Amino acid sequence: MPKLSHRAENMPASPIRKLVPYSLAAKQKGIKVYHLNIGQPDIETPDSALAALKDIHLKVLEYSLSEGNIEYRDQLAKYYNKLGFGDISAQNFIVTNGGSEALNFTLSVLCDPEDEIIIPEPYYANYNGFSTALGVKVKSIPSSIESGFALPPIDAFDQQITSKTKAILICNPGNPTGYLYTRQELEQLAKIALKYDLAIISDEVYREYVYDGESQVSVLSFPELRDHCVVIDSESKRYSMCGVRVGCMVTRSQKILEAAMKFAQARLSPVLIGQIIASAAHVKDEAYIRSVREEYTKRRDLLVKLLNEIPGVVCPNPKGAFYCMVELPVKDTDDFAQWLLESYHLDGETVMIAPGGGFYSDPALGKKQVRVAYVLKEEDLRKSVEILKDALEKYPA
Amino acid sequence: MPKLSHRAENMPASPIRKLVPYSLAAKQKGIKVYHLNIGQPDIETPDSALAALKDIHLKVLEYSLSEGNIEYRDQLAKYYNKLGFGDISAQNFIVTNGGSEALNFTLSVLCDPEDEIIIPEPYYANYNGFSTALGVKVKSIPSSIESGFALPPIDAFDQQITSKTKAILICNPGNPTGYLYTRQELEQLAKIALKYDLAIISDEVYREYVYDGESQVSVLSFPELRDHCVVIDSESKRYSMCGVRVGCMVTRSQKILEAAMKFAQARLSPVLIGQIIASAAHVKDEAYIRSVREEYTKRRDLLVKLLNEIPGVVCPNPKGAFYCMVELPVKDTDDFAQWLLESYHLDGETVMIAPGGGFYSDPALGKKQVRVAYVLKEEDLRKSVEILKDALEKYPA
Ligand SMILES: Cc1ncc(COP(=O)(O)O)c(C=O)c1O
Ligand SMILES: Cc1ncc(COP(=O)(O)O)c(C=O)c1O
Repeated sequence: MPKLSHRAENMPASPIRKLVPYSLAAKQKGIKVYHLNIGQPDIETPDSALAALKDIHLKVLEYSLSEGNIEYRDQLAKYYNKLGFGDISAQNFIVTNGGSEALNFTLSVLCDPEDEIIIPEPYYANYNGFSTALGVKVKSIPSSIESGFALPPIDAFDQQITSKTKAILICNPGNPTGYLYTRQELEQLAKIALKYDLAIISDEVYREYVYDGESQVSVLSFPELRDHCVVIDSESKRYSMCGVRVGCMVTRSQKILEAAMKFAQARLSPVLIGQIIASAAHVKDEAYIRSVREEYTKRRDLLVKLLNEIPGVVCPNPKGAFYCMVELPVKDTDDFAQWLLESYHLDGETVMIAPGGGFYSDPALGKKQVRVAYVLKEEDLRKSVEILKDALEKYPA
Repeated sequence: MPKLSHRAENMPASPIRKLVPYSLAAKQKGIKVYHLNIGQPDIETPDSALAALKDIHLKVLEYSLSEGNIEYRDQLAKYYNKLGFGDISAQNFIVTNGGSEALNFTLSVLCDPEDEIIIPEPYYANYNGFSTALGVKVKSIPSSIESGFALPPIDAFDQQITSKTKAILICNPGNPTGYLYTRQELEQLAKIALKYDLAIISDEVYREYVYDGESQVSVLSFPELRDHCVVIDSESKRYSMCGVRVGCMVTRSQKILEAAMKFAQARLSPVLIGQIIASAAHVKDEAYIRSVREEYTKRRDLLVKLLNEIPGVVCPNPKGAFYCMVELPVKDTDDFAQWLLESYHLDGETVMIAPGGGFYSDPALGKKQVRVAYVLKEEDLRKSVEILKDALEKYPA
């Protein structure tokens, strides 16, 4: 039996992997499980996209250009122009299999094995996966629930930077925190990136979903970062079309684009059909996004209010994305999440939550936290919080 | 400007990259270019798949399971059962973004940076890309046009194996050679893999397209390789649906499957729509494959005959896939291919061919060869060879 690679051994398992068998077992016992643990919206894909699917009259579903078809990149450019980046054109994009592949290409272009990237934590758990697959080391800088997961003091970055550091990776608005970076915070990051000649990788896949009339500030707004920033984008969450697997990387750096093209060419082509239907969604998307944003706002308002009403629960008000990191009055949310599925139900129903440890480099930092996603309708969110409240009263540990 | 990674610098460009601007320039001058250089079939995607597209009534195009949806993996299992592998079930597959991602996962699971894989050459140029992206070294073993690109003597493998060697990668039937390995050749490979505890990665994406009544022998036929082999498969060429981006890795090794799952989970999901329409094609595919095989047979017969009629041209008869590696009576096919696009036309028409160098670790080995794909209809193939013949007469170098 051949020995597997170290990178395979080191690959982290998904933070909820251990819980999956308990969730299946609960369902087999007839228990209804409310999934607060996932990032799959229940929101419908736009009609325009679903109609475009039925309107495909191609006879050969052939490879697209490795960088993405020009029609779709033109739509992307228009969308970025509307965001205020008038200089962005089709050639600034490489279309990818979701934001996931854009992260893979970007890390590949910037980092060799043993190189380091800095990420404020808690962070999207798969950043660990992409880094480990490429032998890249993650240095994390803790943000705190007390500050609502704002950017940690910039000195902390200074202290983590070594000769191996190649990039700072942020998620804005954040998964799992829902935190939206301010322009001032981003300016501080821009300064430090330029000081040490680092790249900023900004994962902006939740850009559309920010609330309270605020708007997201992209790293593309900083002209001084033209050669130093890459944006990760995706249609998955924007148009609730996670399964079509279309995303992109966006940068003004010709050097980065040219290097990324070589990785794109090796895997031949992004998804043809996804590009077609995402184009259709972009053509008439404004009303859709507005209405989805309203829906998420309502859910967030409800969820945050109800959660904070539970004694001992702390839930900062997230300004974007559709997650919140919540502190629970328990010692170990791994144990609590398992207990919810294994030993508890309220009238035949329970909830599944994502233990916080998986979002930190040191799981101990997240031991009292869980990530809750508001991708369920209000009625189900209300029910879920009721269950959580009851469970916290009954939890023996 | 941040420095890019060594891996990015080392990434090979596509073998025809240098020719692309010349091809565009020729087209701008109004010259018609016959593309003998590509692997994109002109064959229509099966009706069943195209109909399935229009029959998608989902309202949310959501993530599929990271390993692929059970419906599709069940179809794959049935297909492998029909190939004679009755023990293969849904759990032996991980569905990927094309065979390309299956190659990436497989190399990731087996190899760390600086590890080595052995590949008989000439080989599919992107094997270099996937390896370089992961820091894996390719050791190649030349096969020769005289033997029709048969497996090199097995001693040559013995000599290349070091403590860093993790796998032997073959393509069967081969791109670019069209060579189909015999059972005896595969037995030799199985023996050496077991002797040194190496994995065999067998890229069988052209399995359906073998001619003259022969049939492809999969490495899955060797029970002794149960823990030592991974098959790379893809719907791209089977159903001429390259743009849907669906492929898979197939193995009986639980260890490899479990490790690959972690890479699959990091990127969340393969393409939902591709799985749906590939399933539909699998349900009723036999007539389709038979007719496409007949079409390729006619084209191959025509192309090989016509090419060998040109003085000084040597074209072995390929037994599978839809490529042949052809020796031309010129010193440098890089120069010849460029000249064809830049300085030549026959009544306003020319051909684009893939210079052989890009398919060898040492480009000098392929200096007199080109890869020609028969993905054009007979009439165009006939015209292309006429042009090639005329061009060889007029080529000044
Ligand atoms: C922060 C973040 N980045 C990237 C992704 C990748 O998504 P996709 O590959 O579907 O675009 C996700 C998905 O959940 C995410 O939450
Ligand atoms: C030998 C070989 N393997 C793998 C692939 C990858 O194809 P895909 O990613 O479309 O499945 C190709 C495509 O040309 C190929 O020729």
